[in-house]
Amino acid sequence: MNTTVPTVPAVLNDTLAHIRAVQPRLREEAQARLDQLTKPRGSLGQLESLAAQCYAIVGGNPSLPMRKAAYLFAADHGVAAEGVSAYPSAVTQQMVENFLRGGAAINVLARHHAVQLTIVDVGVDAEFAAHPALWQRKVRRASRNMRREPALSAAEMSAALEVGVEAADDAHARQITLVAAGEMGIGNTTAASALAAALTGQPVAAVTGTGTGIDSSARQIKQQVIAEALDRHLPHWRTERPAPLAALRGVGGLEIAAMTGFFLAAARHARIIVVDGFIATAAAAVAVACAPAVRDYLIAGHRSEEPGHAHLLRHLGLEPVLDLRMRLGEGTGAVLAMPVITSGVHILLEMATFAAAGVSTATA
Amino acid sequence: MNTTVPTVPAVLNDTLAHIRAVQPRLREEAQARLDQLTKPRGSLGQLESLAAQCYAIVGGNPSLPMRKAAYLFAADHGVAAEGVSAYPSAVTQQMVENFLRGGAAINVLARHHAVQLTIVDVGVDAEFAAHPALWQRKVRRASRNMRREPALSAAEMSAALEVGVEAADDAHARQITLVAAGEMGIGNTTAASALAAALTGQPVAAVTGTGTGIDSSARQIKQQVIAEALDRHLPHWRTERPAPLAALRGVGGLEIAAMTGFFLAAARHARIIVVDGFIATAAAAVAVACAPAVRDYLIAGHRSEEPGHAHLLRHLGLEPVLDLRMRLGEGTGAVLAMPVITSGVHILLEMATFAAAGVSTATA
Repeated sequence: MNTTVPTVPAVLNDTLAHIRAVQPRLREEAQARLDQLTKPRGSLGQLESLAAQCYAIVGGNPSLPMRKAAYLFAADHGVAAEGVSAYPSAVTQQMVENFLRGGAAINVLARHHAVQLTIVDVGVDAEFAAHPALWQRKVRRASRNMRREPALSAAEMSAALEVGVEAADDAHARQITLVAAGEMGIGNTTAASALAAALTGQPVAAVTGTGTGIDSSARQIKQQVIAEALDRHLPHWRTERPAPLAALRGVGGLEIAAMTGFFLAAARHARIIVVDGFIATAAAAVAVACAPAVRDYLIAGHRSEEPGHAHLLRHLGLEPVLDLRMRLGEGTGAVLAMPVITSGVHILLEMATFAAAGVSTATA
Repeated sequence: MNTTVPTVPAVLNDTLAHIRAVQPRLREEAQARLDQLTKPRGSLGQLESLAAQCYAIVGGNPSLPMRKAAYLFAADHGVAAEGVSAYPSAVTQQMVENFLRGGAAINVLARHHAVQLTIVDVGVDAEFAAHPALWQRKVRRASRNMRREPALSAAEMSAALEVGVEAADDAHARQITLVAAGEMGIGNTTAASALAAALTGQPVAAVTGTGTGIDSSARQIKQQVIAEALDRHLPHWRTERPAPLAALRGVGGLEIAAMTGFFLAAARHARIIVVDGFIATAAAAVAVACAPAVRDYLIAGHRSEEPGHAHLLRHLGLEPVLDLRMRLGEGTGAVLAMPVITSGVHILLEMATFAAAGVSTATA
């Protein structure tokens, strides 16, 4: 028996028990309608498949306009002490304060696209004054240094998963249809690369990039730290995929665990989930490994510049909406994709059919 | 002397005389500001280059929110008689009626993204009742069959160019910042493919696709028609790039000529021009060949599925915003890209700087 595999935390029992696959019949129903609309068949490409997926997720009954929200989970990482980032850990706190003042990229995009934004402190190494947009849910002031010990204890991982579940429950209660999770945490590409290696089986070098902008010698250190942590906490990872929660506990982080809980509970509530970049997709991969039906609810907002992201997208079978060489996180890629995604649903529901418009169909 | 080269029509003289290149200094000014914003340098990828381009186009003084408009130019094509399309010519008229009732894809997208939409009949083979969203500017009921004679007479080409200039002048008068041109015209991928071959020098087979959905035998016919028309009207096209207006006259079309005039005049008025798919990009290539500085004002909204589009984008040095395997036209790809483009400008103008937000910069 592999003693590094934690049992499923009690907090997830109810969520996992209620996740259902999306009905293929509803996708087919949407595609059949798309084929009757006044355009050549298939001529809206990926917009059509997005529309069909959204239609099926919400049970064939989308209501317009769609309500949109993003939850931005912030936490520090013990592994940042190893020199794996271009920025000091203090930037996590500083950026949370920037989010609360509305000055960050995610604030601008959320305002511009009418996306409700909530900041969730799940583990920043600092204290914040109360703020209406801030949820104070600190589990611990930073995850532990994965080079020396598992990033999270079993209890810490459970608590962080629960924060994510709470956020998705909140979105459901507020009747949000389109949800995204973003993150802020200096050092978190190290955790995401470690998870990507563990979950996909790719070599560390293939899934480790320059994060916020480290040089090649720092990248060497980052790869070594990741390889050591994997070998220590998931000794068989090179030959056998570890249990997803064992990977999350060993080499994850608090905001990554919260996003995992968020994706699981958002799928349980049948929300349309827009996944952001590398870190968020690592959390999504953990969620899908826990409950494969979660995959049906995921839309990849964009393809990040981080090299590990392409591997995770392929592993999950996700085709990104945008490919703009972004690598910022915060949920920016997910929120930027939302107007494209909602466009597909409007197309499906609001276009005229050939019959209704009196337009001739193809002669071929 | 090549007698097939028309002289520049008088209508373009004023427009061409006033087109100025965008100042590189303004792009640099925008990038310098982007580098001070609270994000790792360059981490918003193409969104940053889009923002810098928009900033420079409007002279360093963008006003938010940006006003958006699309002009949809419709015309029939004599070459449709050769069996080059999956749809009968009557569909051009039927789709214009669909646009006026608000049931087409472009209507849905324009409403969803607050883009003012004007339909311009520049050559549909039908008559329409007056409608507030319709400009009646019919030059001729369809272009001529390019297999037998030049698609346009010199006078017809001038008149169609002038319609496009009028539309861009209108956008300028209405203080529209972000403009797009769309098109509707059964048979117009045949004209666009012929133009793409003439302007880029690519073989006909490389730039000819299935349009709205023809089979492989119809595609063979389409390629043969294009090759015959090129050889007849632009006899040296295989070895030497023809004058752009000679190509437009010989193998273009009325809506393509109107879009050419539109792009020239929109550049003259320093509007941000979002180019749609294959047909619109063929018109943009004619405009750039007439006045290279037009290139500075162009943003490619998306990459179309039509194989000739990639060649035109490379020829113009444009990187598309979206790549969703769309192939509908109407301006749909341009309008769908607009919320991404405006996002970049909002980022540039509304994000906090490192200094103002008290965020530490990179240690590397």
